[in-house]
Amino acid sequence: MNQAQLTFARRFDGVSGSAIRDIFKLLAMPGMISFAGGNPSDAALEDTLVAELSRDVLLRDGKKLLQYGATEGWAPYRAAAAAFLRQEIGIDAEEGHVLPTTGSTQAIDLLLKALVNEGDTILVEGPTFLGSLQAMKLYGVNMVPVDMDEGGLCLDALEAAVKKHNPRLLYTVPNFQNPTGITLLPERRKAIAQMAAQYNFVVAEDDPYRGLRYHGTPHPTIFSFDQNGYVVYLTSFSKLISPGLRVGAAITKNEALLRKLTVGKQSTDCHTPSLTQAIVAEYLSRGFMAPHLTQIIPRYRQQLQHMLDGLASFPEGVSIIRPEGGLFVWVTLPENMDAVALLQKAVDKGVAFVPGTYFYAGGGHLNTLRLNFSNSEPNRIDRGMDILQSVIKEG
Amino acid sequence: MNQAQLTFARRFDGVSGSAIRDIFKLLAMPGMISFAGGNPSDAALEDTLVAELSRDVLLRDGKKLLQYGATEGWAPYRAAAAAFLRQEIGIDAEEGHVLPTTGSTQAIDLLLKALVNEGDTILVEGPTFLGSLQAMKLYGVNMVPVDMDEGGLCLDALEAAVKKHNPRLLYTVPNFQNPTGITLLPERRKAIAQMAAQYNFVVAEDDPYRGLRYHGTPHPTIFSFDQNGYVVYLTSFSKLISPGLRVGAAITKNEALLRKLTVGKQSTDCHTPSLTQAIVAEYLSRGFMAPHLTQIIPRYRQQLQHMLDGLASFPEGVSIIRPEGGLFVWVTLPENMDAVALLQKAVDKGVAFVPGTYFYAGGGHLNTLRLNFSNSEPNRIDRGMDILQSVIKEG
Repeated sequence: MNQAQLTFARRFDGVSGSAIRDIFKLLAMPGMISFAGGNPSDAALEDTLVAELSRDVLLRDGKKLLQYGATEGWAPYRAAAAAFLRQEIGIDAEEGHVLPTTGSTQAIDLLLKALVNEGDTILVEGPTFLGSLQAMKLYGVNMVPVDMDEGGLCLDALEAAVKKHNPRLLYTVPNFQNPTGITLLPERRKAIAQMAAQYNFVVAEDDPYRGLRYHGTPHPTIFSFDQNGYVVYLTSFSKLISPGLRVGAAITKNEALLRKLTVGKQSTDCHTPSLTQAIVAEYLSRGFMAPHLTQIIPRYRQQLQHMLDGLASFPEGVSIIRPEGGLFVWVTLPENMDAVALLQKAVDKGVAFVPGTYFYAGGGHLNTLRLNFSNSEPNRIDRGMDILQSVIKEG
Repeated sequence: MNQAQLTFARRFDGVSGSAIRDIFKLLAMPGMISFAGGNPSDAALEDTLVAELSRDVLLRDGKKLLQYGATEGWAPYRAAAAAFLRQEIGIDAEEGHVLPTTGSTQAIDLLLKALVNEGDTILVEGPTFLGSLQAMKLYGVNMVPVDMDEGGLCLDALEAAVKKHNPRLLYTVPNFQNPTGITLLPERRKAIAQMAAQYNFVVAEDDPYRGLRYHGTPHPTIFSFDQNGYVVYLTSFSKLISPGLRVGAAITKNEALLRKLTVGKQSTDCHTPSLTQAIVAEYLSRGFMAPHLTQIIPRYRQQLQHMLDGLASFPEGVSIIRPEGGLFVWVTLPENMDAVALLQKAVDKGVAFVPGTYFYAGGGHLNTLRLNFSNSEPNRIDRGMDILQSVIKEG
């Protein structure tokens, strides 16, 4: 048909999502060894257990789960999430501080909706999660990257950026960051909470990987250093239970902000499906998380080790960051190399990854790339790393 | 704690959501007969069946359902929804035209995200669904109500508004409209599709009630008269299967628009939970819809009849619109009466409804109110209508 030529909203100018979508299409190619993506291992997805939990909650609470629910969420999920946050993460949260979201993706969208006008500035890590960058672009904001080192955000650079840009929001992934795997040092967490209060900006502490620690000891959250409700903690059960269920939460003690997030959510999807919230609540309250982590952490640790072993024999001039947890290893190639060009060659030989440039608000950094180890078995990691090494050697 | 005083985004200026939230809190009061809300009957929610379907799909496709899915949706749901639209609604749609959404609420939000800039004009029915009004307010648009009569949108008024305002979007609920119960005449549907192409605006045809027809014969959709992709059809399984599952869809043959909706959705919730999509797909493909409608339609028809019987003995000067389907009866009181004041009196006697003023983009129309009949048993409808009648008589 002769299609209508529509004019779209300005917020889509320059937003295509194409590069990444094209990469993810590659993954469907038969035999591809994928170090792209950020998927948990299929082996970590407990289909039989979730089938039973789903049936149980529907047989017990089905009429309520299938009826309209409150935007504020399914109460047993809010309670179970708050208990999990208190007991496992040391976050002093009550049920009433938890807003269930359709994945933590939605929590970021709702924070933007609540806080930013077109043209406002948001500080982000350079590099950072590209899904969040795309969400920010759709709000027409000015994204300013702040330098990181191996201890996370550099405080001097952060304070300078705060003074210069008067940001509405700082977006940070403090543990095993996507894409770099970097973990923010504890003393910097405290300083960031103090800086937020001093300069009056909100910190979005996006922490989906925290439960996946393979080495070292956990650090307190930025949230735990916040006295006045400047920090919003974003959690997700995507990496720990299932991404397909799309269950996350925003946690804040700032009542006015929680109200805006809730009103914004009401217009966005009315509420997160009650069934998926109830499944996660049941999973948590019946104590399945601890044994599950005992199962998956050694496996992920082994997969990471295979990837690091492979990287050890990469050519001189290739540097990496060794993560203490999470799903990713960040690789920096010699300055003259281009990971976008390299990707095509790697794909031809059956290996995919994500070029690092896509994680930078301002692009560039063509010699970087992100490798995921959670979604490939050790023998495939070994093989994929051999291929990748040879492709890099060929330049 | 001493809470941070944050400045929120301008889009929230004047948006509180409080009036309606306060009304819905009333519904939790013990013994309240609620003609507010738009909930399906609890009796129509098939908890045992959904428990079995949920278990079945998880045992069959669990690994895929629990892993990340595509923003474009769970393929079997897209196929089943397209088949349902073709067979039951006469919509010529293929799987590739269907974007699954987290309720049709999300479809409206995504359409706004794709199409409107702050200050753009959207034409709405006067009155219309208040959830959509709130979503529009959060995009900072200018909402212009268009007059309706008992045949729906008045074409002359619509064309005049189009010429005057050059709108980006017309939002219409063509069947058993929320809140009036009005159904748009077939010849007007064709004219609206032609007008959209002539003046280059998009029609959002929001049609969640279509399956709930108690009298008369179905009309073709506006979508079916569209030759060039100006009409987006929004469907939802909230009223037919379950609102708590939050499964709807946007259907468009306009590829460029579908792409914007998809990119917008990617940043909003990544994808609708695969499990809830799979449950609805299974429900449809195993043929549960037809027998379910055979069960619920006579019950809803009877409930409507009880409400109409009650209204027949209301005082002179009260007029109503008799709907052919859906969930609502629209009542107009004598001009001097105020339904907001009346609500408080009615609630004191145990009956709740929604004052009509909240459904008007510009407020006013204080002498109108919306009554829902789907969520009360006939004997409670009889009792509630007696109470409401006496409250109105007392003025």
